[in-house]
Formats: sequence, structure tokens, C-alpha cells
Amino acid sequence: MNFLEQRIAKDGIVKPGNVLKVDSFLNHQMDIALMEEIGREFHRRFADKPITKVLTIEASGIGIACFAAKEFGVPMVFAKKSKSINIEGEMYIAEVESFTHKNKNQIIVSKKFLSSEDHLLIIDDFLANGCALQGLISIAEAAGATVEGLGIVIEKGFQIGGKVIRNLGYRLESLAIVDAMDPDTGTITFREQ
Amino acid sequence: MNFLEQRIAKDGIVKPGNVLKVDSFLNHQMDIALMEEIGREFHRRFADKPITKVLTIEASGIGIACFAAKEFGVPMVFAKKSKSINIEGEMYIAEVESFTHKNKNQIIVSKKFLSSEDHLLIIDDFLANGCALQGLISIAEAAGATVEGLGIVIEKGFQIGGKVIRNLGYRLESLAIVDAMDPDTGTITFREQ
Repeated sequence: MNFLEQRIAKDGIVKPGNVLKVDSFLNHQMDIALMEEIGREFHRRFADKPITKVLTIEASGIGIACFAAKEFGVPMVFAKKSKSINIEGEMYIAEVESFTHKNKNQIIVSKKFLSSEDHLLIIDDFLANGCALQGLISIAEAAGATVEGLGIVIEKGFQIGGKVIRNLGYRLESLAIVDAMDPDTGTITFREQ
Repeated sequence: MNFLEQRIAKDGIVKPGNVLKVDSFLNHQMDIALMEEIGREFHRRFADKPITKVLTIEASGIGIACFAAKEFGVPMVFAKKSKSINIEGEMYIAEVESFTHKNKNQIIVSKKFLSSEDHLLIIDDFLANGCALQGLISIAEAAGATVEGLGIVIEKGFQIGGKVIRNLGYRLESLAIVDAMDPDTGTITFREQ
């Protein structure tokens, strides 16, 4: 097991309904040393790519994306989930359905911050059905930017998202892929990578 | 002018209605080197305090809070703006009105992540009417935690929030306090500190 799988096995909590709670270290309370290690690992995996920006989506992707962007020495841009009066002018917009919150959101990125010159690393904490990633990809493509790769912290391998993204031809790296979870025993089965 | 005031003067955009747009470096696209410098500055200003956790609120506070927490070597906890099915059990809850989005939100923090043992540094990007900070303070107090200080990137000095928080006896450090903005000339007047 890699460092992340070890941490998930130690502190992740399996709940009925295929819910994996990692809120003690990843998406509510954040272990900053772990975030830094995740950032370094994404940099290692995409070191061959000429990344100009890291793109993520609020909220829990932001911390991870910050530390990945730090490693690449590039800015980070996060897509927002609803129109703010502080964002005006031209925006890229995509529709995203949330598995967690069971609702639909528009996600938006100001056109000022993505262009055809950009080579993007797209980052998020979780990949399940892939709707959020597809929204980010569609925004990147609308900008004419190159999606060099996608970095996910935890992929739910038993859901469709990873397969869809890989079938589209994108390079997707998930630091941990959970293939099965048993809420009765708390056992988490990781895919060998 | 300090490093942040210089950056605001250079890249901040003043819009009618007392709107200061800093989305090119602070709260939509993030300049990571600037975030790191902000984190170091908060550490310098609160180095005398026995900080055990940094507390912020999603979404744009997260990046700054991450780099502040990194400097202190402590975890970061961010309050969430709506109930998620991934957060269960006992939670601290506060009601917060958003100036930017003109709506009300409940903000919540899991009771697992704050206790009477904690000495908190509360971080946010903007301080205007102070509702978000007061929500975070009320959550900290409900947990019995000690609020050692509050660190703000940009305070709108012409709004009530800063005065309210300071009158409550809290140590509030704002890296830049904007006392006036002129949308016609783009001039930003910072308070001497």
C-alpha cells in the first residue's frame, strides 16, 4: 500500500451506501503534511507534462490543488459552483450533478483565467461517477486548453467515472482506487496499480 | 505598502458598489507564491500563540488557511456551508449571511474536529460585515475552544465587521485594510497600520 492507501485503511470509515468518510484528514479536517505529500506525488506522476495551471473545483479540491500547484510552480484556478456577483463578464459554464449532495450545480470559470495557451492538470479529491471531472474537462476544452492529465486522490473503482474518463483518452492518475468496501467489517479493498 | 497592499494596488479592480475584485490572485485564480507569503505573515503575527488548529470557511478561505496551517504545523478545519450526507452525527452549527451572495447559509463543523483543548487561529480572505467570522467564532465557542486570533487577508475598513470583532475583544489582524475605493479612478486607499 502507498502512503495514501495506508492512511485510508487507518483513518477512513466505511458507511452503508458506499460512503467512505475521510473527513478527519482529507475533506473537512485536513492533514497538511498529507496534502503536501499528495502534491509532491502528483508532481512526480505528471513531471513530464508542461503544466501551466492546476484546475480544480470548490471546495474540497482546493487544498490539494494548492499543494500540487506549489510543486509545479504554477497558479491554481478553482471552478465555482454558483454565480457570484463578484464574477462578471464572460465565463465558461458546465452543468455538474453531485453524487454527494444529490443536486445539480452550474460550475463556472472566468474566461480570463483559462486560454488556449494553457496546459492543465485537473485535480479533485474524489472520483465517483465522474460528473465533476467531465464538467472541468468541458470547461478546459471550451477554453481551447490542453488537458495534460487528471489527478484524483480517491477513485471509487466500482463506479463508472474512472472508466469513462480513461475511455475518453485522458491520462487519469488516482492515488488510491477503492474497488470494494464492507461497512460491516470496515474492510477497504484497493486496486493493485 | 506591504507585499499584499502592493499586489492589491497592482492587480485589484475596483467596481461600483464597493466591490474589490481580487479574483486574478486571491479567490478564483490563486497565486500560490502569494498564498505562501500570506501564510508566513500570519505565522509571524501569531507566533506567540499556542495554535493547535486553523479554522476557516469554504471556499476561498481554504487555500490561505492551508498555507497558514502549514507554517504552524497544525491541521486545518474548514466549516462547510450546507449539510452534506457525508457529514453525520453531532455538528456545531451557525447561521451566516453572505454579503457577496446575498443569501443565508448554515455553516457547520463536525464536533469531532474541535474541542476545549483547541487554540484556534481563524482565517478568512475577506472581512466586510463580519457575519462569517462571527459564525466561526460562535462555533469555536460552542466547542469550548480558545480563539487565539483572527487573520484576514483583506478587511473592508469602511464596513462594520472589523470594529465589531475588535470590540468583542478578539485579536484581529488584517494584512490589508481598505478604507476607501474609487471605482472611477480605480484608487484604493489603505489604512496605515
